[in-house]
Amino acid sequence: MKILVLGGDGYLGWPTALHLSRLGHDVGIVDNFARRQYDHEMGVDSLVPIAPLHQRARRWQELSGQSLAIFPVDLTDAARVHAVVGEFEPETIVHFGEQRSAPYSMIDRSHAVYTQVNNVVGTLNLLYAIADVDPSIHLVKLGTMGEYGTPNIDIEEGFIEITHRGRTDVLPFPKQPGSFYHLSKVHDSHNIQFACRIWGLRSTDLNQGVVYGQETEETALHPDLATRFDYDAVFGTVLNRFAVQAVAGIPLTVYGEGGQTRGMLDIRDTLACIELAIDNPAERGEYRVFNQFTESFSVNQLAEMVAALRPGAEIVHLDPPRVESGSHYYRAAHTKLLDLGLVPHLLSDGLLESVMLVADKHRDRIDPGAMQPTVDWRRTSNTVGDARDPVAEPA
Amino acid sequence: MKILVLGGDGYLGWPTALHLSRLGHDVGIVDNFARRQYDHEMGVDSLVPIAPLHQRARRWQELSGQSLAIFPVDLTDAARVHAVVGEFEPETIVHFGEQRSAPYSMIDRSHAVYTQVNNVVGTLNLLYAIADVDPSIHLVKLGTMGEYGTPNIDIEEGFIEITHRGRTDVLPFPKQPGSFYHLSKVHDSHNIQFACRIWGLRSTDLNQGVVYGQETEETALHPDLATRFDYDAVFGTVLNRFAVQAVAGIPLTVYGEGGQTRGMLDIRDTLACIELAIDNPAERGEYRVFNQFTESFSVNQLAEMVAALRPGAEIVHLDPPRVESGSHYYRAAHTKLLDLGLVPHLLSDGLLESVMLVADKHRDRIDPGAMQPTVDWRRTSNTVGDARDPVAEPA
Repeated sequence: MKILVLGGDGYLGWPTALHLSRLGHDVGIVDNFARRQYDHEMGVDSLVPIAPLHQRARRWQELSGQSLAIFPVDLTDAARVHAVVGEFEPETIVHFGEQRSAPYSMIDRSHAVYTQVNNVVGTLNLLYAIADVDPSIHLVKLGTMGEYGTPNIDIEEGFIEITHRGRTDVLPFPKQPGSFYHLSKVHDSHNIQFACRIWGLRSTDLNQGVVYGQETEETALHPDLATRFDYDAVFGTVLNRFAVQAVAGIPLTVYGEGGQTRGMLDIRDTLACIELAIDNPAERGEYRVFNQFTESFSVNQLAEMVAALRPGAEIVHLDPPRVESGSHYYRAAHTKLLDLGLVPHLLSDGLLESVMLVADKHRDRIDPGAMQPTVDWRRTSNTVGDARDPVAEPA
Repeated sequence: MKILVLGGDGYLGWPTALHLSRLGHDVGIVDNFARRQYDHEMGVDSLVPIAPLHQRARRWQELSGQSLAIFPVDLTDAARVHAVVGEFEPETIVHFGEQRSAPYSMIDRSHAVYTQVNNVVGTLNLLYAIADVDPSIHLVKLGTMGEYGTPNIDIEEGFIEITHRGRTDVLPFPKQPGSFYHLSKVHDSHNIQFACRIWGLRSTDLNQGVVYGQETEETALHPDLATRFDYDAVFGTVLNRFAVQAVAGIPLTVYGEGGQTRGMLDIRDTLACIELAIDNPAERGEYRVFNQFTESFSVNQLAEMVAALRPGAEIVHLDPPRVESGSHYYRAAHTKLLDLGLVPHLLSDGLLESVMLVADKHRDRIDPGAMQPTVDWRRTSNTVGDARDPVAEPA
């Protein structure tokens, strides 16, 4: 099958591209390398060194015999998006091509606007290209569990049946996103659902939890195939940060109470879920939502699990930079991907040790300052002009 | 009170500015004159001639003794938005400053993108300016009843209490908007609610129905004070179009079955609702939603009411250009503004006659071609490049 992976140079896009290529699909990668630019802007770097995309692709061809088509395209460039979809003629498009950091979107006004325009316009351009070129293309879009926020009722998969004053309907699950980034994903979800309704497009919206881990079967084949490992306060995710802090012998930093509970999954399960979504596509006109995570943990639980593996590791609680509930009800459905056959890799001491092993291998690259939160949700600085101002001091 | 009216040169913004000025408020108008440009682009015009903003304001000063400050500012220009809010120091901002036509947003990709970027970025810039300059400013934002779509349950005012699997929460009412324009308003609503939550802003989101009528107590004082009367297929609203068709002796054009039911209100009630929202502001940190309409009618009912006043008037059903349900359940709460003291002007034969009188007075300006729908929701034309291409032929 011909598959385009948008954002195929990123943390999850790259391993996804490799995985689909190994399965025998004809894979094209679209990327504007924005993720690599954010590193320069913020003065941070992936803990694991990563090769440039062309080098990655050459190494993969050498090892697998499979080639990857590379399209250096910005999704906000409508003409080029249309051209790529028209030329490559994909049956499926996997869309990772968005700014994906909540703290980055909360740096200031210009980063908030950049995040929403980049994500919303990129996806609108894509929807129009699909509708115009071939409405039967299956769009597999990466959303986030963060779209839902933390309601005091069980979270369902995208939709909820509501009975109200004697009448019943199945309606989109109400969203309470917690950052301008998460809001951009909610905007996308509404736009995609509408496009499926009016144009008969088909889409699977994967509301993904927090991903941990760095190695997949394919990336482990050669150092040139490694994917990113982000541990900094802006792009890193919590479990990776704890692993690095434990390895570096510095305190694990929990934001606030630590009762914040989130759905999580192993990076290998991300690939498995995307494979399942592709192999079992949505119907024409259908917009469906899968909640893509395997287990829920509170931040405190994660910190304690990591600390338990490094006797003497300290856990500290920082003033919470985000505006979020430090303890709340959390129960979210996630059966649709299991029903399609997902067999999860659950979080184990073995997996945690393997993440810490990765961190330990690159301990000379650890920048402790990068893990201090610098973005405050309550800050309202109204940076004007076009420049996106860095907030982090050079390390 | 110092009040900024954004979009104060438009159909409702202008009469609102006059009304607030007559009540003794110190009113500033922000506008980028985009609405006047759309006329040039589409080759249409207000049926009632309207004076340029500076002329309108001079006439108002002459007649009332009250001056109106004019700020020719585009809301997507963050620096100027911040400057205006900082200089004028409003206590309340009434925000009409958005692209407000569903068909316009559905012309093609570039109009969809323009609508969402213009509306979402303008509102984001405003939220940052308020948060930075004075978080106690009350933002009265114009939303639309079209955000809700037509669910099979009663529509509540912004929020709904949901009991699910034994637990209960009050959550944002699920939205099913029917155009990229309506989607932009849903995006705004989510962004504003978030800003109230994290920064303690205060906002009233007025989910307004379809407005009819053209004269208010203030605009009737002089022809220079007249507001727009749009009857074309892109910017006109349904009742105005029917009135013009009846006056012109051409068939009233119902889209599809005509069972589409919408909340509606008199233009004078728009002013009264905004006055009530201003006089009874939201609390700090509060995001509240009022459904701003007074009666619901199906398109068929409206056509029949107008036709009954012009014996012999014909009603025709066109192929529906929109993707919407031609007959559906519709019941929406609208008690919050009544509770604050709204006394509605209900739709009467007298009001209908007065609208037809306006149309009749300017019958030499009627362009029958402008009332033919030219925008098809199902069209997916992917116009690329920066130009917004006109779809209407010159009349």
